[in-house]
Amino acid sequence: MEPESPDTPARVAILGLGLMGGSLGLALKRAWPASVITGYDIEPAVAERARARGAIDMLQAFVAEALTGATLVVIATPTLAARNALREIGACWERLAPHAVITDVCSVKGPLAVWAREELPQPARFVGGHPICGSERAGIEAASVDLYMGARWVISPTPESAPAATAQVDALARAAGAAPMRMDPETHDGAVAGISHAPLAVAAALAGALAAEPEWPVMAALAAGGYRDTTRVAAGDPIMGRDMLLANRERVLVQLDAVVAAVMRLRAALAKGDAKETERLLRAASEARRAWAANHANGAGDDGAASGVL
Amino acid sequence: MEPESPDTPARVAILGLGLMGGSLGLALKRAWPASVITGYDIEPAVAERARARGAIDMLQAFVAEALTGATLVVIATPTLAARNALREIGACWERLAPHAVITDVCSVKGPLAVWAREELPQPARFVGGHPICGSERAGIEAASVDLYMGARWVISPTPESAPAATAQVDALARAAGAAPMRMDPETHDGAVAGISHAPLAVAAALAGALAAEPEWPVMAALAAGGYRDTTRVAAGDPIMGRDMLLANRERVLVQLDAVVAAVMRLRAALAKGDAKETERLLRAASEARRAWAANHANGAGDDGAASGVL
Repeated sequence: MEPESPDTPARVAILGLGLMGGSLGLALKRAWPASVITGYDIEPAVAERARARGAIDMLQAFVAEALTGATLVVIATPTLAARNALREIGACWERLAPHAVITDVCSVKGPLAVWAREELPQPARFVGGHPICGSERAGIEAASVDLYMGARWVISPTPESAPAATAQVDALARAAGAAPMRMDPETHDGAVAGISHAPLAVAAALAGALAAEPEWPVMAALAAGGYRDTTRVAAGDPIMGRDMLLANRERVLVQLDAVVAAVMRLRAALAKGDAKETERLLRAASEARRAWAANHANGAGDDGAASGVL
Repeated sequence: MEPESPDTPARVAILGLGLMGGSLGLALKRAWPASVITGYDIEPAVAERARARGAIDMLQAFVAEALTGATLVVIATPTLAARNALREIGACWERLAPHAVITDVCSVKGPLAVWAREELPQPARFVGGHPICGSERAGIEAASVDLYMGARWVISPTPESAPAATAQVDALARAAGAAPMRMDPETHDGAVAGISHAPLAVAAALAGALAAEPEWPVMAALAAGGYRDTTRVAAGDPIMGRDMLLANRERVLVQLDAVVAAVMRLRAALAKGDAKETERLLRAASEARRAWAANHANGAGDDGAASGVL
């Protein structure tokens, strides 16, 4: 069987031109030179900067204008703003090209599927997506044509998604240099609660707690790679973080409880001076982390290799 | 005033030839070609491998032999084994060269100072040290001549340390390519509890909790840079980790309680769906982490730059 090869979309509209949207525009300009890329951002200066960087061909002052004639629409806003974007798309549905496809790059997929069902006249045209990459650096200034290169890109069709729409989103991921990976919204949201959202919350708690210590200035002078890496994701955009934690909060709470329970087990072993149990807990974690690095780290950058991916 | 320039030590004994001791031997062979480096490891195969890699000139089957004629002794064992090393040094004190200097590279300094006072006939010859670098990779195989390049190296003299001994340890740090940084043992141990030991415990708890989830295989397939960095230090040697946590446990417990309290504050905001408070907590953490990166990250490798330092 031949791999699917949908036509290059004639007109792509990117809503939200920060790190993810801006990087996508740069990547699509390279992969799909024949496509016209229109862009919209709630901050006019950001849209202007995206055009100056060559991430979009045309900026539009209104969402409706950016959508006019679009064959592919990518929502690249923070998660909670994505619902408004879907509502605006639904409100000017007749402006889109016939058979237009709608997707997003948000880090939760269940809520997006629900909102698409509620807000779009034809939910079959919506297929959720989540490229598993990013950076603690935010905004159009941090955008990079290579942000998506080699990343996995979860494609989450809903039960009603049209196969041709799903194929178009697969093609989008490939055009950006990523590898599409099919996953249903519920499985996706459970997994990212563990490997992305809970680590963000823990990193933020750690960075916040340390910065509140009276001894923080001395600590900061001494801090090295351990602090740097353990807290890196905490440096990210707080609006993005807030939205992903809140949009997936039931699952995040479960994961946070599991992490706190694990901290308390280790704490209890330390408080008792129980060297055997302390070592056992550290060894289990070390073995699990090493097994992951041996089997899975390629897609996430090698350990110790330069990478800004989230 | 001229900078201190102590003579190159004629004979250096390194006790413990894993990542830290092996890397130090490689660095000293380059910086001090006239010095003879003797080495000892509790595992004969490790000592043999260190000699084969050129990290030491001579291996010795007994600590007493490695110490014979030594002008500088570096203890590079896990923390709790360092007490035994000090005891052995004390027991064959007369074998050392006159005015020999004893130091260590362990990540706690208070206990080392106490043990030196208890175990050595002349505690004035002991000056603690802690190079702020490392790797989640352990053992002589991971040793690198450049491990210490550009790192800070805390030098913690005790009140009784001889100034000439302190100058010799400063020279050792510089020979390895590191920058000596004076800090008293108590200040050091409080700071590393926050920026090294608590992050290790939190990373291990996170990696351990996730690996225990039934959905871990799906999570592992999706995990990317966020999981990778937040848990990196958890992949380290569990014996090293156990020893540093236990040797500094009173301070580590305080830090862990502060981190758990911060997680619970964020959890409460999420549970209430309190977007404002969630954002406030994330923003405070993000600003603190960004300020650290702007002011201090050079010594720890730039954010996003390749580095294996702990």
